[in-house]
Amino acid sequence: MFKVDGKRALRDLQTLARIGKFKSGVNRPIFSPQDMKARNWLVDRLGEVGLETEIDGIGNVIGRSPRASKVFLLGSHIESQPKAGWLDGALGVVYGLEVARALNEAGIDAAIGVDVAAWADEEGYFGHYLGSLSFCKGLSEETIDAAVDRGGRGSLRSMLEHVGLADRPRPRLDKARTLGYLEAHIEQGPVLDRSGDRIGVVTAIVGSWQYRVEFAGEQNHAGTTPMAIRADAGQAMCEFRTALDAKFRTIASPQTVWTVSRMTVEPGIQSIIPGKAEMLLQIRDTDRKLMEALDREIFALADKMSAAGPCTVTAHAASKSMPATMDARLQDALTSAADSLAPGAWRSMHSGAGHDAQILALQVPSAMMFVPSINGISHHWLEDTKHDDIVLGCNVFGTAVASLIAEASRKSALLSASA
Amino acid sequence: MFKVDGKRALRDLQTLARIGKFKSGVNRPIFSPQDMKARNWLVDRLGEVGLETEIDGIGNVIGRSPRASKVFLLGSHIESQPKAGWLDGALGVVYGLEVARALNEAGIDAAIGVDVAAWADEEGYFGHYLGSLSFCKGLSEETIDAAVDRGGRGSLRSMLEHVGLADRPRPRLDKARTLGYLEAHIEQGPVLDRSGDRIGVVTAIVGSWQYRVEFAGEQNHAGTTPMAIRADAGQAMCEFRTALDAKFRTIASPQTVWTVSRMTVEPGIQSIIPGKAEMLLQIRDTDRKLMEALDREIFALADKMSAAGPCTVTAHAASKSMPATMDARLQDALTSAADSLAPGAWRSMHSGAGHDAQILALQVPSAMMFVPSINGISHHWLEDTKHDDIVLGCNVFGTAVASLIAEASRKSALLSASA
Repeated sequence: MFKVDGKRALRDLQTLARIGKFKSGVNRPIFSPQDMKARNWLVDRLGEVGLETEIDGIGNVIGRSPRASKVFLLGSHIESQPKAGWLDGALGVVYGLEVARALNEAGIDAAIGVDVAAWADEEGYFGHYLGSLSFCKGLSEETIDAAVDRGGRGSLRSMLEHVGLADRPRPRLDKARTLGYLEAHIEQGPVLDRSGDRIGVVTAIVGSWQYRVEFAGEQNHAGTTPMAIRADAGQAMCEFRTALDAKFRTIASPQTVWTVSRMTVEPGIQSIIPGKAEMLLQIRDTDRKLMEALDREIFALADKMSAAGPCTVTAHAASKSMPATMDARLQDALTSAADSLAPGAWRSMHSGAGHDAQILALQVPSAMMFVPSINGISHHWLEDTKHDDIVLGCNVFGTAVASLIAEASRKSALLSASA
Repeated sequence: MFKVDGKRALRDLQTLARIGKFKSGVNRPIFSPQDMKARNWLVDRLGEVGLETEIDGIGNVIGRSPRASKVFLLGSHIESQPKAGWLDGALGVVYGLEVARALNEAGIDAAIGVDVAAWADEEGYFGHYLGSLSFCKGLSEETIDAAVDRGGRGSLRSMLEHVGLADRPRPRLDKARTLGYLEAHIEQGPVLDRSGDRIGVVTAIVGSWQYRVEFAGEQNHAGTTPMAIRADAGQAMCEFRTALDAKFRTIASPQTVWTVSRMTVEPGIQSIIPGKAEMLLQIRDTDRKLMEALDREIFALADKMSAAGPCTVTAHAASKSMPATMDARLQDALTSAADSLAPGAWRSMHSGAGHDAQILALQVPSAMMFVPSINGISHHWLEDTKHDDIVLGCNVFGTAVASLIAEASRKSALLSASA
């Protein structure tokens, strides 16, 4: 078997963090010069450890074990949110690189190996999970035509041309080749940091459903319109939010979260009663049935308030990612490795954040492993993880993959022997 | 005595409305080419009726009766809000013009006459009531240096240079000359339209106090931060607003109004719990003591919520215009005229909107008269008043001023006779 060296992964992460360095983090928006430099850095590193590597037509970096007929696919993403942390998805990609390196060094030239991927745009500049969706389901030309950068850098199409990827193929997942997908990531939340655990084995990834809720009232002069005859859209928005919070609390499980991330009123000018308001609402849970119950409450409350007046409330469902349950056998491999290397210092937990593993999980058995985020901070340049935890995480991840390869090799040998 | 012709005023208003015409309204922001054209139009008209007229160093158009030693000052403003109505303050300025014209035509060359003013920037592009404040209290050079256009057209200083007013003097109110100030305006609210009255005699103008309320929480990932440990600044803002509404309802009089005209959250990005929020709050009332009670509740609630956590709430008082009581004798002149020309179709009422008369009222006896706004609409190009009401309003206003001049002349004659 082979054995990873977590300290080497830490050094790789530190090297990678110099590309697009921002304060103690990185600024590597997808397809920025820094991001492309990081992708090319990764292509070189994967090539050095024997993987046939390319950047595909959507920006995915995919390294394939040339002689393996079956693989475990290891991956995450290396672009960052603006001015964000040095680890985030890069951690999982570099863990994958280290596994491939250790496997290569061990001189094991078996039929069961690893492929390593850095998925493009997990962070959703042009569309969430674009890279893993391209790989797993394919992207239509229309989808690519319609995608524009949320930060104002123009269309995806023009960006792909700009970075020289426009004419490249977009390869698809080979299910026959792929025994499973494993992704490591920082937790991005406070659970491990607060409990003192050093490894999280993910049981499920939450679904995330977005809503835009519109409030229509009557714009009027704030001095001359008596309170009794107002139809203040901003006030209706606050009432909706307050009532929805109260209702959700009666339905939610301890792990349910809901968030109003944006509230705007129009025209937003002093002395004018807002005639329009809008909020962005998001619900997350691992339980689809519970999410459907929350979903019904949103529309029921909008109808109830519209009927009561004086403002009209209209809820629009914007996007829905489905909750994904992680594969039990892959989870077992991670928990065995964690129990061996960090006895009593790991826990099973759900992922409140979305990850490419949600997309992969619809196609192949998938699993995720977390390392702690100090103070639960993520998507900020202050994001960090203790070096010891980074090293431990790599060793647990590598041990789990090694055990999975060994198990698959035994099965394969048994099949060959019985044939 | 003299007699105004309301139909002539209507024709003047229709002529003026062609300057900067926008749909059925006008677009004449202060110091725009359209606004300057309107000011010059007014200079010409006031000159034609015998007033010595100038545009002063802040943009006020001031026409003075050259031979009068005492005057009633008549005025309002002619710049408009963006894409707003054709009447608004222009109504009062043109009523003043018509009174001056009628007085001039009558050949009355008495010691008691009228001055007519169109105050600059009542609409607050660079600062509310800039023109009347300049006239009544004076503006410091620092105030002018600091003023910038709310719409992004740069500094007041550069704008005054651009329109050629930078080097002109800014004359001040001559209290010895000015017996009183009268201003006509559209109501800008629904009171007269709903009651069917055609004239409103203003008893008092509300004070308007502005507040900026800041909410500081903790920005966090919306998926990985459990509900129980969140410090959501947007949620705190909704709670504050809801609690303040409830408290205000226990204190407010039927005429008190309060408005949240703007609500923002930061960063306002999907999947991020807002760490900051801010709202603009305004209270209006004619009763200063009641306003002070509301003011105390704002700060008390902010303190209470900050103490309870998890978010910090900080209220900042931004600006305060004081309520102004209208002069009883001037009100009497208006009510007598209204009772004579519109018996049973006028009412006393307060002004929920602020006006230059608030500024003048601190210096000289002041009064205001309203005509109805159809459907209560103002600051919108749909703003309108029935032509019959415009004509009637001018006739009531003119009759009131005529009676005031006659009364003052009698007193003056008595004084002379007794001297």
